[in-house]
Amino acid sequence: MRHIYIVGIGTGNPEHLTVQAINALNKVDVIFIPSKGAAKAELADVRKDICQRYVKSKAVRFIDYAVPARETADRSYVQSVDDWHAQITAIYERLFQDHMTEDGSAAFLVWGDPSLYDSTIRIIERVRALGRLAFDCSVIPGITSVQALTASHRIPLNLVGKPVQITTGRRLAESFPGMVETAVVMLDGELAFSKIDDPDAYIYWGAYLGTKDEITIAGRLADVSDRIVATRAEARAKHGWIMDIYLLRKGSDFDDQA
Amino acid sequence: MRHIYIVGIGTGNPEHLTVQAINALNKVDVIFIPSKGAAKAELADVRKDICQRYVKSKAVRFIDYAVPARETADRSYVQSVDDWHAQITAIYERLFQDHMTEDGSAAFLVWGDPSLYDSTIRIIERVRALGRLAFDCSVIPGITSVQALTASHRIPLNLVGKPVQITTGRRLAESFPGMVETAVVMLDGELAFSKIDDPDAYIYWGAYLGTKDEITIAGRLADVSDRIVATRAEARAKHGWIMDIYLLRKGSDFDDQA
Ligand SMILES: C[S@@+](CC[C@H](N)C(=O)[O-])C[C@H]1O[C@@H](n2cnc3c(N)ncnc32)[C@H](O)[C@@H]1O
Ligand SMILES: C[S@@+](CC[C@H](N)C(=O)[O-])C[C@H]1O[C@@H](n2cnc3c(N)ncnc32)[C@H](O)[C@@H]1O
Repeated sequence: MRHIYIVGIGTGNPEHLTVQAINALNKVDVIFIPSKGAAKAELADVRKDICQRYVKSKAVRFIDYAVPARETADRSYVQSVDDWHAQITAIYERLFQDHMTEDGSAAFLVWGDPSLYDSTIRIIERVRALGRLAFDCSVIPGITSVQALTASHRIPLNLVGKPVQITTGRRLAESFPGMVETAVVMLDGELAFSKIDDPDAYIYWGAYLGTKDEITIAGRLADVSDRIVATRAEARAKHGWIMDIYLLRKGSDFDDQA
Repeated sequence: MRHIYIVGIGTGNPEHLTVQAINALNKVDVIFIPSKGAAKAELADVRKDICQRYVKSKAVRFIDYAVPARETADRSYVQSVDDWHAQITAIYERLFQDHMTEDGSAAFLVWGDPSLYDSTIRIIERVRALGRLAFDCSVIPGITSVQALTASHRIPLNLVGKPVQITTGRRLAESFPGMVETAVVMLDGELAFSKIDDPDAYIYWGAYLGTKDEITIAGRLADVSDRIVATRAEARAKHGWIMDIYLLRKGSDFDDQA
């Protein structure tokens, strides 16, 4: 049976690769490489660097494929994502048919960890649901941007024994500061942190984590919020794009316990 | 200045080690190894296996140290943890003094990722706060049990665009099923999942993930809850200890969006 490996590659530092990921990349027949828009050429470079550094087997072939842009005109958000996933599903099925033998193996390189705000697993399951190709599938975990953030700031993710919410900019207000004392925010294009007015909140922010362009800022939210907004705008203008993540915290270890 | 590396080693599979972790372990002067109680000899074995497999530098010394048990008699939970951390702080300071030169380097191997329900970072900061030793410190991320769980089940952590709560058995009822559609539960000695009565909840459970003893069970909570309770009790009796984690989910991708 065909075997697909969905391989987490970490979030920018090629040394995030695990031994399990490196072994998988060297044992497959094919590695599928997405060609994205030019704006994120740096991300494509990280993928290339990883392959050059770690794929020692000469038997591995690299197959590029184009990722379509998500169409948003004349449809709802759900419809838009659904259509987009359907398009990618068709592309994947085609890749499996055209570039793998019936008992061949292939890998996809996924940014960070495949489980976290990424749809590769979902789309592969959608290929399976088409019912035309039989294949098995393995997921190989990778370092997430959440861990890259806490490692760079050298902080624990959680307060002792307390919960953590991982969320998006759009949904942040539902959880922090009201519900949880620690929130990690990803996929935030709207600077959701800058709308929080809480004198006790701290922020640990990071952009381009793990890459040579990494920037981090930490402090009391009220004190550093403006600086993050300005630094973010500047970096974004310079690079043409930005990937950033942050942790918000209030409260302290043990303050809920007797 | 002394340099301390806090190195995440993943959660049982030695192939979880990252290249960054392996490089750090080979460049330090000393690796500090905790000697725990006999019950968790398997965990000590994973640490040993990792060192044997990956530490090629002959210059690295291994120093064992005893981890005291947490005393719980005649004190509150906070006092108990605080005393325990204070004891370990003193032990760490001693280790740095006795086994490192003033510009030497050392590593601690931390299960999973150092940020997640682990106090190594906190305790190292406490050593610093004593003010008697100057040192620098780096955190190297590792694969968490959360990622080991989702990888083994080949599932996304989050529903599309939706939040995830990481919590403990003790605090689960505060968030799931009321507040979030995805909760990951760690440190659950009280089988908190078995108290949830929700016909729409699904569970993805895993024990000893990444090790040769890995067990996973998934299904509708109402259907598999008893089986998990029984399997867990059996495994725990057999091994003398258990490490397990689970993801609870209700709802589906896109059901909140127009
Ligand atoms: C589509 S999600 C993919 C997340 C990825 N699977 C992971 O495990 O981190 C993209 C979001 O991840 C975060 N992110 C990913 N890589 C990052 C990096 N190197 N620095 C900062 N944030 C990053 C940002 O919040 C970004 O909006
Ligand atoms: C003290 S916490 C440490 C977590 C660790 N730092 C991490 O990143 O996963 C211990 C808890 O992690 C979970 N855990 C750790 N390793 C595990 C494994 N191999 N299988 C299942 N659960 C595990 C269990 O919920 C356990 O109660």
